Amino acid sequence: MADVLPSTSASLDVLLKPQSVAIIGASDDASRIGGRPVASTIAGGFKGRIYPVNPKRPTVQGLKAYPSITDVPEAVDCAIVAVPASLVEKTVADCAAMGTKSTIIFSSGFAELGAEGAETQQRIAAAAQNSGMRLIGPNCIGAFSVSAGWFGTFSSVQASLRLAPGKTAIISQSGAYGAHMFYMAQRRGVATDLWVTTGNESDIDVAEVIAYYAEHQDVSTIMAYTEGVKDRDRMCAALDLARAAKKPVIMIKVGDTDVGAEAAATHTASLAGDDAIYDALFKQYGVYRAHSCQEMVDVAYACQTGLFPKGRKMAIQTVSGGIGIQMADESVKNGLEVPAMPEALQQKLLGLIPYAGVRNPIDITGQVLNQPEVIGQGIDLSIRESGCDAYATYLASAPQAPGLKDFCLQTFKDLREKHPETPMALSMIATPEIIADYEALNIGCFEDPVMAIRAMAALSQFYETFERGQPDTPSALPAGVSEVPDRLVSEAGAKAILASAGIPVTRDVLTESAEEAVKAWHGIGGPVVLKIASPDILHKTEIGGVLIDLNDEQAIAEGFEVILNRAREAQPDATIEGVLVCEMVSGGVETVLGVTNDPALGPAVMFGLGGVFVEVMKDVTFRLAPFGIDEAHRMIGEIKGRAMLDGVRGAPPADVKALAQALSRLSVFAAENADRLETIDINPFVVLPDSAVALDAVIVPKATVLAGDPAVR
Amino acid sequence: MADVLPSTSASLDVLLKPQSVAIIGASDDASRIGGRPVASTIAGGFKGRIYPVNPKRPTVQGLKAYPSITDVPEAVDCAIVAVPASLVEKTVADCAAMGTKSTIIFSSGFAELGAEGAETQQRIAAAAQNSGMRLIGPNCIGAFSVSAGWFGTFSSVQASLRLAPGKTAIISQSGAYGAHMFYMAQRRGVATDLWVTTGNESDIDVAEVIAYYAEHQDVSTIMAYTEGVKDRDRMCAALDLARAAKKPVIMIKVGDTDVGAEAAATHTASLAGDDAIYDALFKQYGVYRAHSCQEMVDVAYACQTGLFPKGRKMAIQTVSGGIGIQMADESVKNGLEVPAMPEALQQKLLGLIPYAGVRNPIDITGQVLNQPEVIGQGIDLSIRESGCDAYATYLASAPQAPGLKDFCLQTFKDLREKHPETPMALSMIATPEIIADYEALNIGCFEDPVMAIRAMAALSQFYETFERGQPDTPSALPAGVSEVPDRLVSEAGAKAILASAGIPVTRDVLTESAEEAVKAWHGIGGPVVLKIASPDILHKTEIGGVLIDLNDEQAIAEGFEVILNRAREAQPDATIEGVLVCEMVSGGVETVLGVTNDPALGPAVMFGLGGVFVEVMKDVTFRLAPFGIDEAHRMIGEIKGRAMLDGVRGAPPADVKALAQALSRLSVFAAENADRLETIDINPFVVLPDSAVALDAVIVPKATVLAGDPAVR
Repeated sequence: MADVLPSTSASLDVLLKPQSVAIIGASDDASRIGGRPVASTIAGGFKGRIYPVNPKRPTVQGLKAYPSITDVPEAVDCAIVAVPASLVEKTVADCAAMGTKSTIIFSSGFAELGAEGAETQQRIAAAAQNSGMRLIGPNCIGAFSVSAGWFGTFSSVQASLRLAPGKTAIISQSGAYGAHMFYMAQRRGVATDLWVTTGNESDIDVAEVIAYYAEHQDVSTIMAYTEGVKDRDRMCAALDLARAAKKPVIMIKVGDTDVGAEAAATHTASLAGDDAIYDALFKQYGVYRAHSCQEMVDVAYACQTGLFPKGRKMAIQTVSGGIGIQMADESVKNGLEVPAMPEALQQKLLGLIPYAGVRNPIDITGQVLNQPEVIGQGIDLSIRESGCDAYATYLASAPQAPGLKDFCLQTFKDLREKHPETPMALSMIATPEIIADYEALNIGCFEDPVMAIRAMAALSQFYETFERGQPDTPSALPAGVSEVPDRLVSEAGAKAILASAGIPVTRDVLTESAEEAVKAWHGIGGPVVLKIASPDILHKTEIGGVLIDLNDEQAIAEGFEVILNRAREAQPDATIEGVLVCEMVSGGVETVLGVTNDPALGPAVMFGLGGVFVEVMKDVTFRLAPFGIDEAHRMIGEIKGRAMLDGVRGAPPADVKALAQALSRLSVFAAENADRLETIDINPFVVLPDSAVALDAVIVPKATVLAGDPAVR
Repeated sequence: MADVLPSTSASLDVLLKPQSVAIIGASDDASRIGGRPVASTIAGGFKGRIYPVNPKRPTVQGLKAYPSITDVPEAVDCAIVAVPASLVEKTVADCAAMGTKSTIIFSSGFAELGAEGAETQQRIAAAAQNSGMRLIGPNCIGAFSVSAGWFGTFSSVQASLRLAPGKTAIISQSGAYGAHMFYMAQRRGVATDLWVTTGNESDIDVAEVIAYYAEHQDVSTIMAYTEGVKDRDRMCAALDLARAAKKPVIMIKVGDTDVGAEAAATHTASLAGDDAIYDALFKQYGVYRAHSCQEMVDVAYACQTGLFPKGRKMAIQTVSGGIGIQMADESVKNGLEVPAMPEALQQKLLGLIPYAGVRNPIDITGQVLNQPEVIGQGIDLSIRESGCDAYATYLASAPQAPGLKDFCLQTFKDLREKHPETPMALSMIATPEIIADYEALNIGCFEDPVMAIRAMAALSQFYETFERGQPDTPSALPAGVSEVPDRLVSEAGAKAILASAGIPVTRDVLTESAEEAVKAWHGIGGPVVLKIASPDILHKTEIGGVLIDLNDEQAIAEGFEVILNRAREAQPDATIEGVLVCEMVSGGVETVLGVTNDPALGPAVMFGLGGVFVEVMKDVTFRLAPFGIDEAHRMIGEIKGRAMLDGVRGAPPADVKALAQALSRLSVFAAENADRLETIDINPFVVLPDSAVALDAVIVPKATVLAGDPAVR
């Protein structure tokens, strides 16, 4: 997949770590859009060369100014374009001619305004590409590197800067959101160096910047914001690089309700896509999807320790029973376990602290004020003997209490020395200065104990993603598999195609007379279902075109005629292929398998349980196609009604393996037919105790591949 | 209900606004438990008299000390008891003898340790009660009033104090949680004056303090933490007072998963109760249930403006499209609406800002930098013409941008002057000092735009609660209603009892012979169901004791014998009353109505849809009994599978009115039988298009009312 992304390191270095920069449209007024990057970069202590371009002034903010980029004495690494939209095309051409290595276009008035703007934007991007010049924007607010002192932005968010440069990098399609992420990151103690906004993404997009960060040695965590992915393969390749590099990606994708999506469509030139498909993408690549900026920076903060729990077992120690309970509650809600401490450990803890709760949470109670040494003893014992993966502690105001302050800090210094790799989180009442002392020990500190748990849960998810690595490869389709046809096919046709892809279907016989139908029943050897066979009748039941549970000659012969007559009456123009005689399947769990082909993200497979689960509870999950058996099992495990497959009311467990295999095969088939496929519906797909089978199927080709006149198909 | 709570104002004033206080066990060392209240109260500028009690010292922290409370020269308003557990009983007796008006017992070692401690605690509470002395604790960390300068606590949390006293009051059963609430409130800008922790609640409990706050003129919002309600009537009365006073109550109740509940049971002397029943309590009284301390203080912060949206319509204005989308998404997720702006308003907005998105969110885009007057113009137009109830604005860093800062603030000053009562929320990138300027305009400020929306949603919920006021009164039971019997009854018996309470049941006839059964079928006049009738056979289907859809003499006569034989074979010792002949009900939506009798919260009614909805999806909701029709409709509206009742797959809508009436009647019956009832199960209760009917029912009396020898019943 790597070939879908350009080799990024060199090309984005010129943007974020330039040796020389030009600001075209530079203003002497530091508060103006063209003045801000000059002022910020001077103030940032930038070590490279700064060339303000302004035809009306000899100097800008004390620096020599140049009338045009063509007058600048070198080919700069990065040029900012802060000129009216009408001048952008010419300016970019000048930059290209000068050998400028990259440009950041602040100006708006392009694709976001409609077709004409989009055309101009495309011309600009093409010109840049032809000359090998990389481009950010247009309609963006720029990029910066704190460590380089380079602030190629007209945002004033860097006024929020209070932390030394750090390894959490920010990429945002939206300029304002990018600024907000930086602001909240600084307030939360998430140290950032690199920051990019991509705006209209005429060249560099969010995916490419993620890939750049994934390969960048000074980045360990990636905070990203997107309004919609335009190129799935690029995004998948980028997320794959981040996963391989074991760098957590925390992403916000807005537009997850109908209202939001409507606003998204009017706001950017991007495709909003179907939100469930984005969920699928994020789940497949282990991206943490945040739903607020606060959640994003809290998770990024936790990632800063670089210590990821190697499992889901939480040990909780608290000086307040109530807070311990709340932390335990929150652990369970977030998929963590709070196992009972081993009996021997419980006895040892009781030996130390006779009044303690020792099951887990370990409640050393407020009496710890009189016996503060148990804080460290309890945690140390837990780390050594509990078998847990992460340790969360609530300390109330002990770390700032007179007489306890130094002792408490020393306790955690000792613990960290003994257990340098153990993930630890603290919640406490303390001043920012005291908190900083604990953070220096690589211990995550959280005002709210509930947030400490949520963060630990996120870290353990990242660990699982990194350990899992590349997902399992799906099996290739069988030889001779059919492709999606260029016309609508009947149920029989659809099932034949799916069967060729290795998906089990009922034994069906297409019959053209009552005699053939009876013969088919004999062949199947048990009760059958008769169904009208016509590519033009998608909803067979509604016209009375289905008869079930027939098991004698007369019923079948009569049924054949009944169905045919009903179909002719209901839809006289329909092409009738005959009557399908299908083995009747009883029992099992009804599920629904589907494929949708998202305009932006391509084919995705849906799974849900049948009936009210899908129709009323909307209990479904998606994955981008193709995927293997393991991913299919994860899908199945996500369904809220999962217990149905384990057997309820005394029913035997369903053959989940056969289900997973069908999902994976369907995904491979969908991926192979990405260009031809509109949608597939396998409903119901019945999962029996030792097999699974499709009872009905519809395949709809893309309108663009449908052959012939639709009126007569 | 008011009579279940003592008249609180006077008695708790002596605790929180004392004129004179004694600290028994006072220490000269300000860092010790007995030294902290002395030091804090001196430092707090307390205007009343402070009497340290310490038999070993002539002075404590510079104040004259007294050897015993009996040596103190007046009957103090409040005495703190900070002595070893073994001395508490004698000390409290001395306080009572001296006419002390209230005591706060820090000491632990009572009910939380087991039966013996509980006994001592009861004796102490009784002694206090006999002398009219109010009591907080034991095992608590005290109470304080910032404005009074009285810090009757050994917590050091008041070191976090940075705000002037305010109208958000804190009550917490857990001392540490109470301290944490105060700490986070201060950090979030939630100004607090009154603070109480109740510990073991031997006298004053969380409910009483809520009632006190509800009636207190200096309290407008109540933040509460409880681990379990011991006296339902007191809590309901207290929440009723708060609702009547239109004071928001934000409450945390821990133990909402199994793990948490287990820890709760070992931690306090309180009953954890069933969490779903707590949800019911909170919903019925309009309490906002927070699940983290951060969520609690964010909502309390929003309440400080005192401006509650009078509906659910949000207008959103943003300088960032992406953030606007996220705010719209979050609105919908929180039950708010984001209606399209009226066409005329959209045109006016476009006149002002041709490049804007004007549907809602109103996206004035980053170009606002060049045209900042549109910020105020847009909001002013929206307030006047949109018909929305609340206004959320995202400003990015405009409020701190050079050249925009003053203009921006003046804009909101003007807006507030024109619209003094309009609920407004802001999210922006700004320094704390700038934010304070906007807060002074009674505008809620949120770092995270998503939090601004969540807070507005909470405020609109409070408004609905306050407007609704007292819930509708349920109708009284019909005359001659049966009570829950002192024995197990068969289905026929249970249905007869429910029918007497006005709950519709199938037409059933209990028959003792095949002839009677056939006669009953003739009487019913249509297909029937036969069921074994025995108080000892609760699961009739499992022994083959049910036959459905019988509609001829022979089938019924034979069916009678078949059922009887199966029952005799399966359970030879069962008392057999005969065979129940029931009208057969077809169609409709299966629901489940139930009653559970919580040890702490009393009878509660459950509602859910039948089948997989209850069994697999656990899609149920509860309400404390009794309640009226309106509350029943709110219950029904909460179910995730609600659409089933509206008719799916072409089914007609179900008679939701009949369902609501049955729920309300069941709740009245349950409340009347609170002392006799263990559980009721009406499963299924079928809701038809124009009626509803119970097909089966089980009533289980409390073990304590079951008469006779259980072995032979």
